[in-house]
Amino acid sequence: MTLTLEQINTATPAEFVALLDGVYEHSPWIAERAAAQRPFMSLAQLKLALVQVVRGATLDEQFALIRAHPELAGKAMVSKTLTAESTNEQNKAGLTQCTPAEFAKIQQLNADYNARFGFPFILAVRGPRGQGLFKAEIIATFERRLGHHPDFERDEALRNIHRIAEIRLNDKFGHAPELGNLVWDWAERLATHSDPGYAEHGQLTVTYLTDAHRVCAQRLAHWMRADCGFDEVEIDPVGNVVGLYHGSDRNAKRLLTGSHYDTVRNGGKYDGRLGIFVPMACVRELHRQGRRLPFDIEVIGFAEEEGQRYKAVFLGSGALTGHFDMDWLAQKDADGVTMREAMTNAGLCIADIPKLKRDASRYQGFVEVHIEQGPVLNQLDLPLGVVTSVNGSVRYVGEITGMASHAGTTPMGSRRDAAAAAAELLVYVEKRGAAVPNLVATVGMLEVPGGSINVVPGRCKFSLDIRATTDDVRDACAADVLAELQRICERRGVHVSLEETMRAAAAPSAPGWQRRWEQAVEALGLPVHRMPSGAGHDAMKLHELMPQAMLFQRGLNAGISHNPLESITNDDSELCVMAFQNLLEQLATEHS
Amino acid sequence: MTLTLEQINTATPAEFVALLDGVYEHSPWIAERAAAQRPFMSLAQLKLALVQVVRGATLDEQFALIRAHPELAGKAMVSKTLTAESTNEQNKAGLTQCTPAEFAKIQQLNADYNARFGFPFILAVRGPRGQGLFKAEIIATFERRLGHHPDFERDEALRNIHRIAEIRLNDKFGHAPELGNLVWDWAERLATHSDPGYAEHGQLTVTYLTDAHRVCAQRLAHWMRADCGFDEVEIDPVGNVVGLYHGSDRNAKRLLTGSHYDTVRNGGKYDGRLGIFVPMACVRELHRQGRRLPFDIEVIGFAEEEGQRYKAVFLGSGALTGHFDMDWLAQKDADGVTMREAMTNAGLCIADIPKLKRDASRYQGFVEVHIEQGPVLNQLDLPLGVVTSVNGSVRYVGEITGMASHAGTTPMGSRRDAAAAAAELLVYVEKRGAAVPNLVATVGMLEVPGGSINVVPGRCKFSLDIRATTDDVRDACAADVLAELQRICERRGVHVSLEETMRAAAAPSAPGWQRRWEQAVEALGLPVHRMPSGAGHDAMKLHELMPQAMLFQRGLNAGISHNPLESITNDDSELCVMAFQNLLEQLATEHS
Repeated sequence: MTLTLEQINTATPAEFVALLDGVYEHSPWIAERAAAQRPFMSLAQLKLALVQVVRGATLDEQFALIRAHPELAGKAMVSKTLTAESTNEQNKAGLTQCTPAEFAKIQQLNADYNARFGFPFILAVRGPRGQGLFKAEIIATFERRLGHHPDFERDEALRNIHRIAEIRLNDKFGHAPELGNLVWDWAERLATHSDPGYAEHGQLTVTYLTDAHRVCAQRLAHWMRADCGFDEVEIDPVGNVVGLYHGSDRNAKRLLTGSHYDTVRNGGKYDGRLGIFVPMACVRELHRQGRRLPFDIEVIGFAEEEGQRYKAVFLGSGALTGHFDMDWLAQKDADGVTMREAMTNAGLCIADIPKLKRDASRYQGFVEVHIEQGPVLNQLDLPLGVVTSVNGSVRYVGEITGMASHAGTTPMGSRRDAAAAAAELLVYVEKRGAAVPNLVATVGMLEVPGGSINVVPGRCKFSLDIRATTDDVRDACAADVLAELQRICERRGVHVSLEETMRAAAAPSAPGWQRRWEQAVEALGLPVHRMPSGAGHDAMKLHELMPQAMLFQRGLNAGISHNPLESITNDDSELCVMAFQNLLEQLATEHS
Repeated sequence: MTLTLEQINTATPAEFVALLDGVYEHSPWIAERAAAQRPFMSLAQLKLALVQVVRGATLDEQFALIRAHPELAGKAMVSKTLTAESTNEQNKAGLTQCTPAEFAKIQQLNADYNARFGFPFILAVRGPRGQGLFKAEIIATFERRLGHHPDFERDEALRNIHRIAEIRLNDKFGHAPELGNLVWDWAERLATHSDPGYAEHGQLTVTYLTDAHRVCAQRLAHWMRADCGFDEVEIDPVGNVVGLYHGSDRNAKRLLTGSHYDTVRNGGKYDGRLGIFVPMACVRELHRQGRRLPFDIEVIGFAEEEGQRYKAVFLGSGALTGHFDMDWLAQKDADGVTMREAMTNAGLCIADIPKLKRDASRYQGFVEVHIEQGPVLNQLDLPLGVVTSVNGSVRYVGEITGMASHAGTTPMGSRRDAAAAAAELLVYVEKRGAAVPNLVATVGMLEVPGGSINVVPGRCKFSLDIRATTDDVRDACAADVLAELQRICERRGVHVSLEETMRAAAAPSAPGWQRRWEQAVEALGLPVHRMPSGAGHDAMKLHELMPQAMLFQRGLNAGISHNPLESITNDDSELCVMAFQNLLEQLATEHS
């Protein structure tokens, strides 16, 4: 007997609470408080309403909710306080069949965790795909989370509780996120291919035109053609995988979308690739339905965005905007292989690269889906975010030169401490960065070269990274930081040398396209959260040619990216695909 | 015709100015203002009075004084504005016989220097020994000083002007600092012996029981015996060179003095050694006069203070206090040679080490002369300083752990930036250290390990070094710093681990002994400047056994030490020997 939205929306409050019994462990107050927000237009909206109740609860209530949960493989498992749902989930994870060593390990972790945080360790053991985590994954997560800050870990516990509730609700409603699973499984399968030196360690690294990279291209091309029903698929002269799903009007302006399939070293499975899989899933659905939109959909898996093997960032999308620099071909990788050799070896036709430049008049615009790569949506408990702008950025590396002197004999007033000057700058940078919304300022590198415990630092190296939604905001911050640096150095009698190493213009979303994403999110029953993209994306390059707008999907683990811990849920991906489908429908309607 | 103090003191003001004509280039106002301070009891007092006039002058007057000097090997040398003294000094340095390449180099430096500072480069080309610098030294100094901060370089120019004036005054008064020269020349000769790997590069490195170290011991022993007339000289079982100059009463309590002759790697010529040479010069004078004091003088060249070859700091003086740790003997140096092997190879009798412990009842106390190794006396234009205490110190190394995250995508409010936390601490440490006199607090090591320009730092390593004249002041500062660190970490949600790596108790000077040094300085016509010793010294060890007090001599080049730029003048050393002689006279008087 599965629940329906209709049932939920028409039940009395008491019935509503009873229908949701067991979703949140021993905590009927959550459903009680959500009841008034009915009717819910989607399961996603119901889930979020419950989440919002917990977010709005007192800290005491939140801790009570956490403490209402049993320990992992704990004593509670044999006591009556454990719900049937918990027993079932822990059974599935194999936690009821631990070896004595595993059991002892988990008991020790439980004790350490409780001592540190004062509440039991909560983990959604059915995991991001809903099919269960391995015991080893569970133990590794347990150990990692022991190191968290208590405030963060409290929120992480709540996030796991919400994930547990989400899966329980899916079960109650008989809801299977098929499209999200499709995306999740593609990502998992593509991630089995990794460069030598990484594959052996289970790490994901796919850099430009390595064997693993070329296998990925083949897999993507095959999935596009065979699984999704794209009409034309090719690997272009720079290695981009280009799939075309014909529209009913082949002369209508195309929709361009996609993202990159290369990765950083030991990176995540979703960075870039999510933006290929989501439109692939949409095309697959259209094809299954035998449906043609009025316009062609061109989905591209860009061959290169991360600049790992060669210093040629955005090589893939850059080829489409006419920014492939032929000088790059002579660049050598760490093994001395030139890019030209790598491309020839891959059978790519270098002479045809200039032909890749797209004619903007043939396109409606470019949209890109991407994992957020930041903590914002994770913190807000929101699955999707609408990007307002890919931030403009500027980077510097600098070195402050003071005078190294004896830490014991140089009075405080006589010092020219290079590190103290850098520290003062860092404190300012942080304050200035926080003073304005949609601005970030970071000192990522900081080092006293050859520093000694008993020597006042004579040198200090540092970096600066400033990004903002608009170039003006970025430049105002940079100007202030540089002026403050000058003041600090003058006051302290130290010298600074500074080099600008990178500058990229902001790429604000085209308003019409951003609005389409907003409508798509609203159609799911979700609130629109607008946010800048702090990271650079292929959309930045396409921005030079046509209107663009991006949609972000929540990353788990505080949004960590460029890291194996990068993660997403199948349910979020389901919503992401649905948002993309909605955008396609909007465009189809506009076209008719 | 040489000047006398009598003449100077009895002249009219106008005559006084005329007598000092040419001492300060084209600047009679300096003598004019000093005239009222007569009578001067010593040439040192006259010199200092003139220096004080310049220190009290306006910045404009100071710049005018600097600009009254000619460029090095400049056009002025052929114009009438160059004084006879300047021509003479530049002639002596060979600057009037430059090769075309040297001349061009100097002209370029002159142009660069003038462009940077707006005044000519002033260098006392007759140097710290008064006998002239080599052209290569002059050019190297010129290049180095081009990098100085303008304020510092202005003061450095003035200091050179005072040194020029000092040498000119010596000439006028027919004063030759013979005892200072003796000390200076001993230091120069001892510095010709250096360990392999350093000697070839002209660097001074003498570590425990290397060949160079043992040669140094032999030279010291020979000079003590043959040049100075010590009655007994021996190299003791740890390698200390011990010289005894008998007193008329062999049963009277001895005076103990000395310092170390080992060096750090690529160190200076005076660190430690000055404190052996100064009392050697005193004994030499007593012996030349056939004079015996009522008590024995025991002068020790300690074999080891710097802890370079083995981790056994204060090995030499520690042997006298019974703190030679027999476990040290098994320690290996970088080449795998144990200390025991090194000692055996040097012919030292390890079994006799325990006998080195001194019987405190046999000694009046311990005095030690040392180069300041700091900038204070150099900044104050004072040749000597009286030490109030060898500072107590405490050291920590720490690491802050936050959360590494994407610099572009992590909003300022969501960061756990380990480097920002460390920077905040550093700013506090500096402020707290400056809030109390005779306290210094330093973060000498600071590093974001593997930091990236685009990653919010997840880790930051740092060190802390806190020193103060008393343990209480040190501990209060350490407590405040640690409390602030805790507050910073809690507020920011980051974690810190901290390890105390060193703690040494303060060694305040014995009041009676400090007073003797003060009287000795006053007897020279110099003001008493009391100051703590920020660095550790052998006196710290002897402090455990008997009363002690130290005298500091000014270091040039901002007091830099543990560096080849460590430097002193012969005139300062002359005053230092005279102060030691005065202390001996005081003790003799007290004894009679």
